[in-house]
Amino acid sequence: MAQIVKRVVQSPVCGSLLGTCHNVTGVIRGFNKEVFASQICRRSLKTCSVRSSSSASGGNDLSTKRQYNVGVFGAGRIASSVHIKNILQKRRLNLKWVLDDSPTSVSSCKDLLNLHDTPFYSSEDREQLLNDESLDAVFVFTPTDTHADYICESLSRGKAVMTEKPCGETYSDIKRCYELSEHTNKILLTGFQRRFDSTFQEVFKATRNNALGNLRFMRVTGRDSPKPAYEFLRNTDTGGCSLISDMAVHDIDMTVWLTSAERPISVYTMSHMHDPIMKEIGQPDSGLLALKYESGLNVIIDSDRESPYGYDMRIEMFGSEGMARAENPRETAAVIDVADGGKCNRLFNSFPQRFEAAFSKEIDHFIDCLDGTDTPLITKEECLLSMEIVEKGVESFRSGKVEYL
Amino acid sequence: MAQIVKRVVQSPVCGSLLGTCHNVTGVIRGFNKEVFASQICRRSLKTCSVRSSSSASGGNDLSTKRQYNVGVFGAGRIASSVHIKNILQKRRLNLKWVLDDSPTSVSSCKDLLNLHDTPFYSSEDREQLLNDESLDAVFVFTPTDTHADYICESLSRGKAVMTEKPCGETYSDIKRCYELSEHTNKILLTGFQRRFDSTFQEVFKATRNNALGNLRFMRVTGRDSPKPAYEFLRNTDTGGCSLISDMAVHDIDMTVWLTSAERPISVYTMSHMHDPIMKEIGQPDSGLLALKYESGLNVIIDSDRESPYGYDMRIEMFGSEGMARAENPRETAAVIDVADGGKCNRLFNSFPQRFEAAFSKEIDHFIDCLDGTDTPLITKEECLLSMEIVEKGVESFRSGKVEYL
Amino acid sequence: MAQIVKRVVQSPVCGSLLGTCHNVTGVIRGFNKEVFASQICRRSLKTCSVRSSSSASGGNDLSTKRQYNVGVFGAGRIASSVHIKNILQKRRLNLKWVLDDSPTSVSSCKDLLNLHDTPFYSSEDREQLLNDESLDAVFVFTPTDTHADYICESLSRGKAVMTEKPCGETYSDIKRCYELSEHTNKILLTGFQRRFDSTFQEVFKATRNNALGNLRFMRVTGRDSPKPAYEFLRNTDTGGCSLISDMAVHDIDMTVWLTSAERPISVYTMSHMHDPIMKEIGQPDSGLLALKYESGLNVIIDSDRESPYGYDMRIEMFGSEGMARAENPRETAAVIDVADGGKCNRLFNSFPQRFEAAFSKEIDHFIDCLDGTDTPLITKEECLLSMEIVEKGVESFRSGKVEYL
Amino acid sequence: MAQIVKRVVQSPVCGSLLGTCHNVTGVIRGFNKEVFASQICRRSLKTCSVRSSSSASGGNDLSTKRQYNVGVFGAGRIASSVHIKNILQKRRLNLKWVLDDSPTSVSSCKDLLNLHDTPFYSSEDREQLLNDESLDAVFVFTPTDTHADYICESLSRGKAVMTEKPCGETYSDIKRCYELSEHTNKILLTGFQRRFDSTFQEVFKATRNNALGNLRFMRVTGRDSPKPAYEFLRNTDTGGCSLISDMAVHDIDMTVWLTSAERPISVYTMSHMHDPIMKEIGQPDSGLLALKYESGLNVIIDSDRESPYGYDMRIEMFGSEGMARAENPRETAAVIDVADGGKCNRLFNSFPQRFEAAFSKEIDHFIDCLDGTDTPLITKEECLLSMEIVEKGVESFRSGKVEYL
Repeated sequence: MAQIVKRVVQSPVCGSLLGTCHNVTGVIRGFNKEVFASQICRRSLKTCSVRSSSSASGGNDLSTKRQYNVGVFGAGRIASSVHIKNILQKRRLNLKWVLDDSPTSVSSCKDLLNLHDTPFYSSEDREQLLNDESLDAVFVFTPTDTHADYICESLSRGKAVMTEKPCGETYSDIKRCYELSEHTNKILLTGFQRRFDSTFQEVFKATRNNALGNLRFMRVTGRDSPKPAYEFLRNTDTGGCSLISDMAVHDIDMTVWLTSAERPISVYTMSHMHDPIMKEIGQPDSGLLALKYESGLNVIIDSDRESPYGYDMRIEMFGSEGMARAENPRETAAVIDVADGGKCNRLFNSFPQRFEAAFSKEIDHFIDCLDGTDTPLITKEECLLSMEIVEKGVESFRSGKVEYL
Repeated sequence: MAQIVKRVVQSPVCGSLLGTCHNVTGVIRGFNKEVFASQICRRSLKTCSVRSSSSASGGNDLSTKRQYNVGVFGAGRIASSVHIKNILQKRRLNLKWVLDDSPTSVSSCKDLLNLHDTPFYSSEDREQLLNDESLDAVFVFTPTDTHADYICESLSRGKAVMTEKPCGETYSDIKRCYELSEHTNKILLTGFQRRFDSTFQEVFKATRNNALGNLRFMRVTGRDSPKPAYEFLRNTDTGGCSLISDMAVHDIDMTVWLTSAERPISVYTMSHMHDPIMKEIGQPDSGLLALKYESGLNVIIDSDRESPYGYDMRIEMFGSEGMARAENPRETAAVIDVADGGKCNRLFNSFPQRFEAAFSKEIDHFIDCLDGTDTPLITKEECLLSMEIVEKGVESFRSGKVEYL
Repeated sequence: MAQIVKRVVQSPVCGSLLGTCHNVTGVIRGFNKEVFASQICRRSLKTCSVRSSSSASGGNDLSTKRQYNVGVFGAGRIASSVHIKNILQKRRLNLKWVLDDSPTSVSSCKDLLNLHDTPFYSSEDREQLLNDESLDAVFVFTPTDTHADYICESLSRGKAVMTEKPCGETYSDIKRCYELSEHTNKILLTGFQRRFDSTFQEVFKATRNNALGNLRFMRVTGRDSPKPAYEFLRNTDTGGCSLISDMAVHDIDMTVWLTSAERPISVYTMSHMHDPIMKEIGQPDSGLLALKYESGLNVIIDSDRESPYGYDMRIEMFGSEGMARAENPRETAAVIDVADGGKCNRLFNSFPQRFEAAFSKEIDHFIDCLDGTDTPLITKEECLLSMEIVEKGVESFRSGKVEYL
Repeated sequence: MAQIVKRVVQSPVCGSLLGTCHNVTGVIRGFNKEVFASQICRRSLKTCSVRSSSSASGGNDLSTKRQYNVGVFGAGRIASSVHIKNILQKRRLNLKWVLDDSPTSVSSCKDLLNLHDTPFYSSEDREQLLNDESLDAVFVFTPTDTHADYICESLSRGKAVMTEKPCGETYSDIKRCYELSEHTNKILLTGFQRRFDSTFQEVFKATRNNALGNLRFMRVTGRDSPKPAYEFLRNTDTGGCSLISDMAVHDIDMTVWLTSAERPISVYTMSHMHDPIMKEIGQPDSGLLALKYESGLNVIIDSDRESPYGYDMRIEMFGSEGMARAENPRETAAVIDVADGGKCNRLFNSFPQRFEAAFSKEIDHFIDCLDGTDTPLITKEECLLSMEIVEKGVESFRSGKVEYL
C-alpha cells in the first residue's frame, strides 16, 4: 500500500486523483501481497483518473496552458445537446466553427446553445476549413458512414481527431483511420464514454493487481431507455444486426477493456424480435452474446432496446477472490418508507443523464492527449478487437451456431 | 393523480419536469385522497423543478430569450471554482466584470478560469459599475459583512441580486435588504443551494399533500468535510457560535422549508469543543439544536465541523403515515464483495462535489426569476425566521437552558 | 387493488398471508388493469405463503390438529444439523425413529441433537419400520442413489414422503416415484428449499399477473460457499457433469418455477475446470447454461463451485414492464463509514444460514399437505422438466454445441 | 489483527464465532495500531457471539453437557408465542412446568404449543414448585409488578433466573434483586434482547478498540409497530411516562451498553401527545431524550408509539474516525424496478419477527451462564444506570427543563 501511494504521488496526474477519488479497491490492495506491476498501474491510474467534475477548468491546469482551436463536424440532436455543449464549457477549447448540411440541425443547434456568433458551414467547405493552419483539432459527430472519410481527411491535414464510436463501419475502415493516425503522428480518440464513468472505472481498478483473483465470469448488461425511434432502427446496420453493432458494441468495448484485450475463442448469439415492427424490420430487440476465453473466463453480454424502468447499464466481474459490480445510480438518494414498503427514485432516464460527467471527462482526456500528458485510453488494438467480436456475433446471429475466432 | 397531472401539464415549466424527474412520491400520491392544495402544488412543483442538468442551456429555452448582462462581487476561492465557473457556463448570462480587491484572488481567478478577456475591478469602482444601465443583475460572493451594503447599493440602482447566504449578518440587515427588494421591485435571491438538490427536493415533495401524514419528528444532519481552516474558524462569528450561525444555518433553512415556515416554540442547544484549538478559540465543533413546535413536531439538528468519511448531509422526516429520508449519495455506484465483506466508495468529499448540480440549478432559478417565469424560492419570511432560530440557538448555547421564541 | 384484496381475504390461507407479508408487488398490482386470474392467484399466494417464522407452531394452527408420526432415513451431517433439527422443532410432528447404517453418523446425530431417547435403526430394519400402521410419513435424506428405492418402498406402504432433491438419479427414476405417488394417492414432496425463501417468492409473485410484462431475459446465479470437499466432488455424478446435475439443478428448478414450466427449445453449456484437482477429476467448477425459449425469453444460469465472499444465490427477471431481482441478504444490516469508504457485512456463509427459514417452511408445507390444506408446490411435471434440462445441459457440455429439446 | 485472531482461536466459544460471523469491523481493525485491550476483547467477542442460529443445539455443544430442568412464570401472549416456544426448542432445557393464573392464557398456550403433556400451575403453587431440588432455573415472564418478588423467591431457593426486562419497577427493586443474586451466587439475567441482535452487535464491535475514534454523537431510534393496545397503554406506568419507562428503556440500555456505562450529566425530554386518546390517558406517544456526557458525547433517543411502515429500531454512532449504523433489515432482499421507481419490501412488522434470532440467542446465553462458560452480558451496574436515566427523563418530562444526574 505504502509503495503504491508513493509511486502515485510522484505522478502529477495520479496525485491529483488521490485527492478526489477514494477508491473501493484501496481496501483490497492492503491485503494483497503481489507486486503491483508498475506499468499497468500507471496506465490504470492515469486512464481512470476520476477528476472532480467541479474543477473549474475541466481538470486541466490552465495557468500555463494555451487554448486549442477546434472545429465540429455534425450538429445533430446529440451532438448539440451533449457534445457541443461540453466543448463550449471547456475553457481550454475555442470553438471556431460547426459544420452541418441540414438547415434544421443548424438552426436548432444555434437556438439551443445561443450559438449566434459561431460560424456554421456545410460539408463542401471542409477542405478550406481543414486547411486552416491555426486549427488544432476536430470533433466528428456526423453519421457513422461518414466517420472514416472525415477522420482521414482531418488527420492528413495534421489535425487531431476525436470521434463518436466507432471510427468506421468496418474492420478495414477502422484500421485505415488508426494507421493514418500512426503515420501522421496525430491523435485519434474514439469516444467510448463509459470508460470515463467513475462507477465503471471502480470496477476496472478492481480487476488490476489481481484484486479479484482469476476472472471466471463477467456479465455486461445494456438496456436502452427510451426505445430509439423506429426511423433510426430501420436505417441502422440494415444488413447486419444493429443490436450488436450499434448497441452491444459499447458492452463489447467494456469487455475488451476489462480483460486487457484478451481474445475470446468463441461467440454464441441468442436473440429475439419481440416488437412486431422490429420483426418486420428484421432486427432483434433483445438478445445476448456468450463469449468463451482460453483462460476459462466466460462472458455474457445481454442487451435490450427498451428498459421501462430507465437506462440500465451494469457490469459484474466474478473472480476467484471476489466480485466487483457496477450498479446503476438512481436519480436521487431519497428513500421513502410507507405502509406497503420502501420506495426510491428510478434510474436515470437515458444516456445524457447517466453519462453526463463521463461525456465531459472524455473531452478533458482529449485535451490531456493534445497537451501530451496522456495518450488515448482507447487504442487501435482494442477498437479492432471489438470490431472482430461484433462481426463474429453477427455471424452467430445468422447461423444460430457457436462461431470461433 | 389524474387531476394533478392535468394541472401540471398546463404549466410549461412543470410540464417539462415530468419528462425528466420521476418522483418517489408519485407512488404515494395515488393512495392519498385529500385534495391537493393547488397553490402549494404550483409552488412545490415549480420550485422543485429538477431540471435535467444535461439540458444544453441550463434549463432555459433560449430561442426567444435574451442574454442578461451580469457583474460579480468577489472572486475568492469558492466564488471562482464554483459560482463564476457556473455563471460562465450559462449561455443566457453575459459576464461583464468581476470585482475583487485582492490581487491574489484576481490572479488566481483569471488563471483558473482563463478569464483573461474579462475586466476585473476593485471595490471603489462599484458606483460606476452599478450605474451602467445595461447591467441587469449582480452576484454577491464577498465576505458576509459586506453583503447587506453591496446588496442594497445594487438594488437601489435597479439591479437584481443573487447572493450567497445569508444576505446579512443580523436580523435587521436581512430585513433591510428584503424591504429594499420589495420597495424597488427588484429580485433578491439568497443562495441556499440545498433547496435545489434533487435528493432534498424529493423529501420536500413527500411533505406536500400530507403524504407523510402529520409530522412528528425530523432530523437534519450536517457534518462538514474536510474541516475548515483554523484561520476561518478563528474569524467567523467571533462573539457568537459559528457552529450555529455559519454551519447549522443551512440545516435551519431546511427545517424552515420543510415545515412551511412553521415557528418553533423553543430551542435547546447542546455542544462541545473537542479539538483543543477550538477550545482555545472558544467555539464548539460539535453539537445539536432541539426544536419544539406547537404542532407536536420535534426537530433535532446535529452538526459537526469534521466528518472523517466525507461530506455528510442528511434529512429524516417522520410522520404518522411514513418516513422520507435524504441519504448521502456516494462517489460511485460500484460494490465490491470480498472475503471479509462488502465495500463501496465513500461519500463525496465536500460541498463542491455534493452540490455541483444544485449550485448550477440555483443560477438557472435566478434566470427564471429574471425572466419573470418564477419567483425566488427562498423568501424574506423564511430568511428572517431562520435568523430568529439562529439567534435563539446561540442564546441557549450561552445559557445552557431551553430558550423560548 | 380493492378487488384483489377482497378475493384474498375470502381465502383463509391467503388471508393470513396478508398479515405477515407486505409484498413489493402489491404496489405494482394497483396499476395493472388486467383481471387477476383467480386460479393462478390462489396457487401463487398459497405456494408463496411467507409464514412468519416466529409463529409458535411453525405456521400451523394446532388447536384442532393431530400430531403425525414420522420416521427419518439418513442422519448425515446436513440431515442432522438442518432437517432433523427442524423436524424436532415442529410440534405437529412426532419423530419415532431415525435410520442410518453409519455408526459415526448415528453417534454424531445423537450427540448433536441430544437424541438419546429416540431409537436409531439400520437399513435392514426398514421393512418392519414401514409396516408400522401408526407411521404417517417418512423423510428421505440418504444419498441420492438410494432415493428412488426408499421413496417407492415407503409410498407403497401408504406413507407420505418428503425427500431431498432430486427424488431420483434419472428421468425414469423420478417418473417412477411420482407415478407411484399418483397411484397410491400418497404425497411425495421433493425438497427444493429455495421455493420457500421469502426473497425468491417475492420475485415469483412479480412474475404473476403479468406485473413484469412479457419476460425477455432471466438470470439465475448460484455460487457455492464454501467449496465442497474433494471427496464429495470426486464421487458425485462421475459420468456426467455434477456442476449441472448437483448444483445448477436448483437454479434450473427456479427457472422452471418462474416460467410456469415453459419448455426451452435449446440449451448451450459453457464451462471450465479452473482448479487443477477438478481438472484431474474431469469435472468443471465454473460454467453457465444458456436456454432459449419459444416465447423469446433467454435465460442464463451461471454456476460456480466456490464463492470467496459467501453463498451467492440471485435471480434477475427482466420483462417489458419492469425488472425483479432477488439479491443476497447480508449477515447484518450494519453499515460502517470510515475514511476509505463504506463497509457492510458479508453474505451468509452457506446454505444452512441462507436458507434457515426456507428449510423450516418446507416442512410446514409438508404438514399442510398432510393436513390436506395444500398440495405439493413442486410437481411431477416440474421435476421431470428440470431433469430433461439437466440432461440436455450435460449433452451440450459434452458436445460443445447448442442442443435442442 | 494476527494477535486478535490467535487469542480468539484459543477460546472455544470465540473460535466458533469466526466461522460464522465475518464482521465489518475486521476491516477497520487492520488499520488500527492501538493495542487491543485483552479484557475488553474477550468480553466483547464472547458477548457478541453471533452464533449461527442454524446450529442444531442452539449454539451449545451437547455431547458432554446435561439438560437443565426449568420452570416458567407467565404464559401470556408474548411468553407463549416467543419465549416458551424458544425454550421448547432448546434441547439443553427440560421444561417441567408453566405457571399462570389466567385460565384463558393457560388454554391458549397449551393449544398454541401443543403443550398438553406439560403441567400448568397457578401462583399459589409456587412455593412447592420452587422447593423442587431438581429444578435448576426459572424464567419470569409475568407482568412487571410481580418481577421482583418472583425473582427473589426463586433466587433465595437457589434457582438461576432469567427475566424479561426490567427485573423490577423501581431502582430499589432492581437493586434488591441483583444484591440477592450476588448473595446467593445465583445467576440473574435481565432480558434486553437487542444486545443479542447481530446488527446491533456489529455496531457494538465498532465502538470497541476505538475504531470510531472519540464518540461525538449517538442516536438511538425506537418506533413501535403496530401501536400497542390502548388497554396496555392505559395501565402501564400510570403515574410516570411509559414512553420512557416501557419503551425508551430498551434504547437507554443500548446507550448504556455502547458507552460502556458512561454516566450522562444531564437529560432533557421533549414529548407530545398526538393521539387524542393518549391525551386523555395523559401519556405522550412521541418524544425524545437528549443526553449530555462529560466526554462531549451527545445522545438523542427518539421514540414513537407507532410506525406505519414497520418496526423501526436503529442506531447511529458518530466518532472522530467514522460512523457505524445499525439499519433496519427488510422482510426480503428483493428489489423491483418499474417505470415509476424502485421498490423493496417493508421492514419487519414487529419485535417477534425483528428479534426472532435475538430472543433465541438470549436463551443460549443463559444456558452458557448456567454452564459457567459465560457471565451475564447485562450487569447490575448497567441495569441501575438505565433506571437512573429513566427516572431523570421522567423528571424532565414533568418539569420541561434540563435535569442533571
